[in-house]
Amino acid sequence: MLKPLGDRVIVEVEEAKEKTVGGIVLANNAKEKPQTGKVVAVGAGRVLDNGEKVAPAVEKGDTVLFDKYSGTSVDYDGQSYLVLHEKDLVAIVD
Amino acid sequence: MLKPLGDRVIVEVEEAKEKTVGGIVLANNAKEKPQTGKVVAVGAGRVLDNGEKVAPAVEKGDTVLFDKYSGTSVDYDGQSYLVLHEKDLVAIVD
Amino acid sequence: MLKPLGDRVIVEVEEAKEKTVGGIVLANNAKEKPQTGKVVAVGAGRVLDNGEKVAPAVEKGDTVLFDKYSGTSVDYDGQSYLVLHEKDLVAIVD
Amino acid sequence: MLKPLGDRVIVEVEEAKEKTVGGIVLANNAKEKPQTGKVVAVGAGRVLDNGEKVAPAVEKGDTVLFDKYSGTSVDYDGQSYLVLHEKDLVAIVD
Amino acid sequence: MLKPLGDRVIVEVEEAKEKTVGGIVLANNAKEKPQTGKVVAVGAGRVLDNGEKVAPAVEKGDTVLFDKYSGTSVDYDGQSYLVLHEKDLVAIVD
Amino acid sequence: MLKPLGDRVIVEVEEAKEKTVGGIVLANNAKEKPQTGKVVAVGAGRVLDNGEKVAPAVEKGDTVLFDKYSGTSVDYDGQSYLVLHEKDLVAIVD
Amino acid sequence: MLKPLGDRVIVEVEEAKEKTVGGIVLANNAKEKPQTGKVVAVGAGRVLDNGEKVAPAVEKGDTVLFDKYSGTSVDYDGQSYLVLHEKDLVAIVD
Repeated sequence: MLKPLGDRVIVEVEEAKEKTVGGIVLANNAKEKPQTGKVVAVGAGRVLDNGEKVAPAVEKGDTVLFDKYSGTSVDYDGQSYLVLHEKDLVAIVD
Repeated sequence: MLKPLGDRVIVEVEEAKEKTVGGIVLANNAKEKPQTGKVVAVGAGRVLDNGEKVAPAVEKGDTVLFDKYSGTSVDYDGQSYLVLHEKDLVAIVD
Repeated sequence: MLKPLGDRVIVEVEEAKEKTVGGIVLANNAKEKPQTGKVVAVGAGRVLDNGEKVAPAVEKGDTVLFDKYSGTSVDYDGQSYLVLHEKDLVAIVD
Repeated sequence: MLKPLGDRVIVEVEEAKEKTVGGIVLANNAKEKPQTGKVVAVGAGRVLDNGEKVAPAVEKGDTVLFDKYSGTSVDYDGQSYLVLHEKDLVAIVD
Repeated sequence: MLKPLGDRVIVEVEEAKEKTVGGIVLANNAKEKPQTGKVVAVGAGRVLDNGEKVAPAVEKGDTVLFDKYSGTSVDYDGQSYLVLHEKDLVAIVD
Repeated sequence: MLKPLGDRVIVEVEEAKEKTVGGIVLANNAKEKPQTGKVVAVGAGRVLDNGEKVAPAVEKGDTVLFDKYSGTSVDYDGQSYLVLHEKDLVAIVD
Repeated sequence: MLKPLGDRVIVEVEEAKEKTVGGIVLANNAKEKPQTGKVVAVGAGRVLDNGEKVAPAVEKGDTVLFDKYSGTSVDYDGQSYLVLHEKDLVAIVD
């Protein structure tokens, strides 16, 4: 198991779905748009200047939106994940 | 539903209105001016160094002015939104 | 009405007066000098690290001096304004 | 009257004196040296992270030394002044 | 013995394993992926602005994931180690 | 008299001594080495974020070592001085 | 005697030992590796934002590892030293 450190969050990236029009698969032309993924692990959080620890505001299982150029890709147990800092998470998709 | 994280605010951008002179549509020549949009969701806010959380100073439904080059564009449910940090919001249009 | 956010101040810029010598209008050759304007709206202020809010030190109606290259130009109700951060205001002209 | 904002100080710059040798005016060859000026107005000071306001450590009437490339030049009532941040003042000439 | 200073952690790097397919050794083509290593020593931690010391969140013996371009390589007793700042450790491999 | 402001220290620079070998003056070839000087005036110190003032850790009369490329040169009463920030002072020569 | 200021530490650098193979001196090919030295003097430490002084975590006599490109070289009493900031010290060699 991977346990992210600090304010990091580990995400299983969702493949951007190809759009189809009448059964014809169209290449995804929104390459610059953020991507979504499912949170699989959350770090203990960052430490404030007053010594307080602030846990990331997301939980395991959340679907999150993040900028596609942020994060570090890691492989673990034959599966590829993305490790992101909390600040790189844009929104929760509810 | 998209729930913005941290000090982020989600905005539905208003199309810059074309000016018409005697019925002739004129291209908008003020490309560098800020844009307006309607706030559709507000994050829980940023955490200060003393551990206090500060919510953004805008509310759902507010019309806001923002610099047109700030923010990240996201698509959700066939609608396009802009996710902005609170600091990129310039003013509320009352 | 425009309500500036954070430590922003909205200013109605005063046109730099042309100098005249014996009735001949001279082009203003002091292009790099700061400009003056009248404050029309003041934000609620910035939040300090201890959670305290600090209002800008100017009031509606003040004539202020600011660096001419700072601020963001906005149009509202057919009038052009400048939105400045408090730190970009140099002095009050009394 | 000009009332400087924040930690700003308004200074009336003293012209660098030309050196004369036997009545011959020599160009000032110390162009990179700091300049002196007389303080004509002092801002209320900067706000610390704990909310305390710290007034600049100079007073109206002080002669100060400052780096000649710092500050913003302003004209007021036919007189030219320099607006400096307190940190750009190097020393008081007593 | 090497005792890391501040928030530093000393790691014994694990060689990236070559993948084999039917006995044929394949070059590792994931050169940009993070590497793993075993923690051999942990510093006393960094000092917060309030004077509190925060020890790194890893322990001797932990297997950690870190970005392969971070850290400083040191030789000691004929063995090569990597000294990393805590912030460069991405996750603990459990 | 020059009274340095903030954390500044005024130093009378000591001329780097030329080395002589058998009476032959050798040019100083250690141009990049720090220089020494005598402290002639010390500022009141910098203000911390908690409002406390911290005086520089040197006193009038101390001989100090400083990086030769730091500081601002000033002339006063026909004498040349160097104004340095406390952080640019490397050591006291006892 | 040299008394380092602030969080500085003065180190007597140890010459990187040449490796010999069967009596043949080999040039040191690990030029990018950190160097070691013996601590000869330690500053009083840096001042935190709360006014507390934090002494460097090393003592006179410690052998320390530091990045070879950090620090300022100083000559004193015919001996060459390196003045380093505490943050540039990587580890204590015990």
